[in-house]
Amino acid sequence: MSLFTGVGVSSGRASGPVARVAEPLPEPAAAPAPADAAAEARRIRPAAEAVANRLFERAGAVGGEAKAVLETTAAMALDPALLSQAEQLVTNNALPAPRAVHEAANGFADALRNAGGYLAERVRDIHDVRDRVIAELLGATPPGVPDLDRPSVLIARDLAPADTADLDPRLVLALVTEEGGPTSHTAILARALGIPAVVAARGILAAAPVVGVLVDGDTGSVETSGEPVRTQAAERDVRIDWNGAGGTADGHAVSVLANVGSASDARLAVDAGAQGVGLFRTEFCYLGADEEPDVRTQRAAYTEVLAPFAGRPVVVRTLDAGADKPLSFLDMGAEPNPALGVRGLRVCFERPGVLDRQLEAIAGAEQDSGATVSVMAPMVATADEAAWFADRVRAAGLGRAGAMIEVPAAALTADELLDAVDFVSVGTNDLAQYVFAADRMSGALAGLNDPWQPALLRLVALIGQAGHRLGKPVGVCGEAASDPLLAGVLAGLGVSSLSMAAAAVPAVGSALASHTLVDYQKAAEEAKNAPNAARARESAFATLQ
Amino acid sequence: MSLFTGVGVSSGRASGPVARVAEPLPEPAAAPAPADAAAEARRIRPAAEAVANRLFERAGAVGGEAKAVLETTAAMALDPALLSQAEQLVTNNALPAPRAVHEAANGFADALRNAGGYLAERVRDIHDVRDRVIAELLGATPPGVPDLDRPSVLIARDLAPADTADLDPRLVLALVTEEGGPTSHTAILARALGIPAVVAARGILAAAPVVGVLVDGDTGSVETSGEPVRTQAAERDVRIDWNGAGGTADGHAVSVLANVGSASDARLAVDAGAQGVGLFRTEFCYLGADEEPDVRTQRAAYTEVLAPFAGRPVVVRTLDAGADKPLSFLDMGAEPNPALGVRGLRVCFERPGVLDRQLEAIAGAEQDSGATVSVMAPMVATADEAAWFADRVRAAGLGRAGAMIEVPAAALTADELLDAVDFVSVGTNDLAQYVFAADRMSGALAGLNDPWQPALLRLVALIGQAGHRLGKPVGVCGEAASDPLLAGVLAGLGVSSLSMAAAAVPAVGSALASHTLVDYQKAAEEAKNAPNAARARESAFATLQ
Repeated sequence: MSLFTGVGVSSGRASGPVARVAEPLPEPAAAPAPADAAAEARRIRPAAEAVANRLFERAGAVGGEAKAVLETTAAMALDPALLSQAEQLVTNNALPAPRAVHEAANGFADALRNAGGYLAERVRDIHDVRDRVIAELLGATPPGVPDLDRPSVLIARDLAPADTADLDPRLVLALVTEEGGPTSHTAILARALGIPAVVAARGILAAAPVVGVLVDGDTGSVETSGEPVRTQAAERDVRIDWNGAGGTADGHAVSVLANVGSASDARLAVDAGAQGVGLFRTEFCYLGADEEPDVRTQRAAYTEVLAPFAGRPVVVRTLDAGADKPLSFLDMGAEPNPALGVRGLRVCFERPGVLDRQLEAIAGAEQDSGATVSVMAPMVATADEAAWFADRVRAAGLGRAGAMIEVPAAALTADELLDAVDFVSVGTNDLAQYVFAADRMSGALAGLNDPWQPALLRLVALIGQAGHRLGKPVGVCGEAASDPLLAGVLAGLGVSSLSMAAAAVPAVGSALASHTLVDYQKAAEEAKNAPNAARARESAFATLQ
Repeated sequence: MSLFTGVGVSSGRASGPVARVAEPLPEPAAAPAPADAAAEARRIRPAAEAVANRLFERAGAVGGEAKAVLETTAAMALDPALLSQAEQLVTNNALPAPRAVHEAANGFADALRNAGGYLAERVRDIHDVRDRVIAELLGATPPGVPDLDRPSVLIARDLAPADTADLDPRLVLALVTEEGGPTSHTAILARALGIPAVVAARGILAAAPVVGVLVDGDTGSVETSGEPVRTQAAERDVRIDWNGAGGTADGHAVSVLANVGSASDARLAVDAGAQGVGLFRTEFCYLGADEEPDVRTQRAAYTEVLAPFAGRPVVVRTLDAGADKPLSFLDMGAEPNPALGVRGLRVCFERPGVLDRQLEAIAGAEQDSGATVSVMAPMVATADEAAWFADRVRAAGLGRAGAMIEVPAAALTADELLDAVDFVSVGTNDLAQYVFAADRMSGALAGLNDPWQPALLRLVALIGQAGHRLGKPVGVCGEAASDPLLAGVLAGLGVSSLSMAAAAVPAVGSALASHTLVDYQKAAEEAKNAPNAARARESAFATLQ
């Protein structure tokens, strides 16, 4: 047993088994050459099968999109071309098996990356499979947050926002990190979820293999044990209590909505208690199609997604394609900067028929499903563009037309934009990318793409003020909406609905209900005037704790 | 003789020989196969030589950068690989010579485009050479604004901003267009330069070859003649009178500065009457170098550019490289969206030594040249970044540190930014690209990248207000500064210096002196509240005419 002392950043005590967030594996060495190449090559297939089996097992335990993703990843691990190429690198090039898997997978990843578009988005999955198979071969733990099969205390160097995206709060008893501080992402997350947490517990990672641990988020003490300890959930109530009515403690309404992109997403969103859908991505209907799907096909596909929300509001976003997300039937050329190219609504200026047919299908699906549909366009830059879109929406017999605000110019002309449409919805991910001129996929520039950046909050404030002046709703449907602390700040900036991944709905709904609108307005004012993102986060936390 | 009636948009009468702005050539047909392939192939080389000779001839008549550009283009036309490939396409594939040149040049252009970076920027030059050689083979006029060798009346379908960038106003007697309206680019430009102009002169292009023409910009009449007519410059005074003191009619100072990128540019800038340099691009010093140039080499190169401005202010911009403008010694990787990647100052966060050595060289060049040097960083996104840069500038013993504002976030936090540095300079070209999420090189999105867009003017206003609050200078060094009408609007938005291509200096200086600051403030207020770019331009014209 050892005692470590860090900084308690989220109060409560909990104990239980330890799950370590493993660090990235070093790149496997190309030497020494295996003594028996044939035997070394024979190690690869069983390792891949073990990885695939564990993924299939997890897939069986979950539903919806998550199941499909896990099954796809498992199938990738068993890809015959990948395995035979890795085996050949061992037998022909005398590489150790982990190195051979590394090189074969990277070759695949490069090919996917060069293929561009949706295929390029699978590169991360290939890397995930690669790391899992290599870890299996080395007897090591695959990097990242482990798949928890029972309530556990997570120990990590520090948690990145990406690590926590899919974390199931019901299975995390407490968080302990070696690094980080009171305003780190880990700390904010733990407080928002009501999970005890200790950060800056120096030495905890180097401690001998730890089986059980007792965490005190008030004193900052972490007691480790080589023996299993009795699992005890935090003493304070970690259940997320939310009555399902989106709004602040004083009854100011803020709708808590879900982002969906398929029928299974929609069912998950209903189960999570979402009041409606703030962003229905319609690309799924076009993917993999060599030709534009006809109106009947689209209508049926949209109806299936809308049906679970009969009687409730759903915001449908029209097709968001471009050189970065190519669709073969659109026949778009390559562009030097796809994110700054002809994408979103811009694709339709030359092809209004594509938009009109989609609107016709959406109008039909509204009738068939009984959902209350609004339609919004992606990548609107000017009020003229918004008016052009709204005309077509109304011509299709649809009642409410809106615009995504993800181009900074749209935010800067929010009054004129709102004059042309019925509502706007801020896509904070793309908006941040353009506001900071920083590719949202770039690791080197991730610090700029922080949704707490004051410049971004100032733009959202401009939009919120315009919404207030014109008496029209302003939503947020980017990742910012799923941060329970930021959600309140957005409400304080004048945002009237938040749309997020279904998993975040209860925590955000519950957090929103914990303070009054005036509190949020105060926190928002401070955050947007902060000198940088870290200080904005700190000041909001201090005001809303 | 025929009489055409259009809309007079810029008053005055002028007559003289006609120069036509030729329209794009249709893509040459791949058939019919030449009867005598060998003879057809032999036509290529003399056509290319004729093109090259004309370019060399023009190069001899101009100086500085323009000379170098013309000589490079001429050399491209004579590229042995290009010519022999075109010849082979005729002899082996039985293509007509124009088609063979088309295909050979496009193959070259693709290779350059794939090479990326600076090479990709030569694609336009290859296309230029291609069109000139094809036009020569067809006996047609190469597309674009012709090279004027004497004062002429320009006749065009309409002029694009790109057409007018290098137009020499001293050689244009009048402008006549078949299309366009009173607020077209052609009309604005003509008024700003005091050149008579008639737009919407339907039928003028289809008129039989016109030799001479008499234009009345008041009545809108255009009289054509098959005979040479007496050249007569406009009856109103088209000379640009500027006393060289930058400022408004009521004496509010606005510095009129030049953008330079070489010693010859600097000499041209002095000749044009620039009060100083608002943007000294230092990339020329690094181009083509396999290794970083040493401090001594840099110091000598910078001194040569600074020397003509001894005793005057020069703003030096530190190295602006990135995946879009790669330098081999920096060893940058490719990026999916180079314009949103690690570029400008971002390159130096990981390589502060590159910046420190450049600052040392600049400090030395300031001493050697006697110019009054300020230094600014490209692609600054946050006040923290600006402060980091300013610390290094001061550590190098340089007196004044500034930041380019080309990232929207920098504009939105202009107060904090100006708190960290001594001045800012707005790069409107890149700023517009990010504000509209529209690649500035994309033809399809050129309408969004219009510097008159109200969203862009609103951001400039935010920066101008911050400059006023903090009592620090705000410059503009993008293309917007070279539009004589927009220059006044920028002054009205709070901009205290304008930096532009040397050729634009007298026209902008003269235009600025024509109205009072209050007039410009009124025009600026109207333009930034306009519903779109065209209305912004119109309203400014109406206020300032």
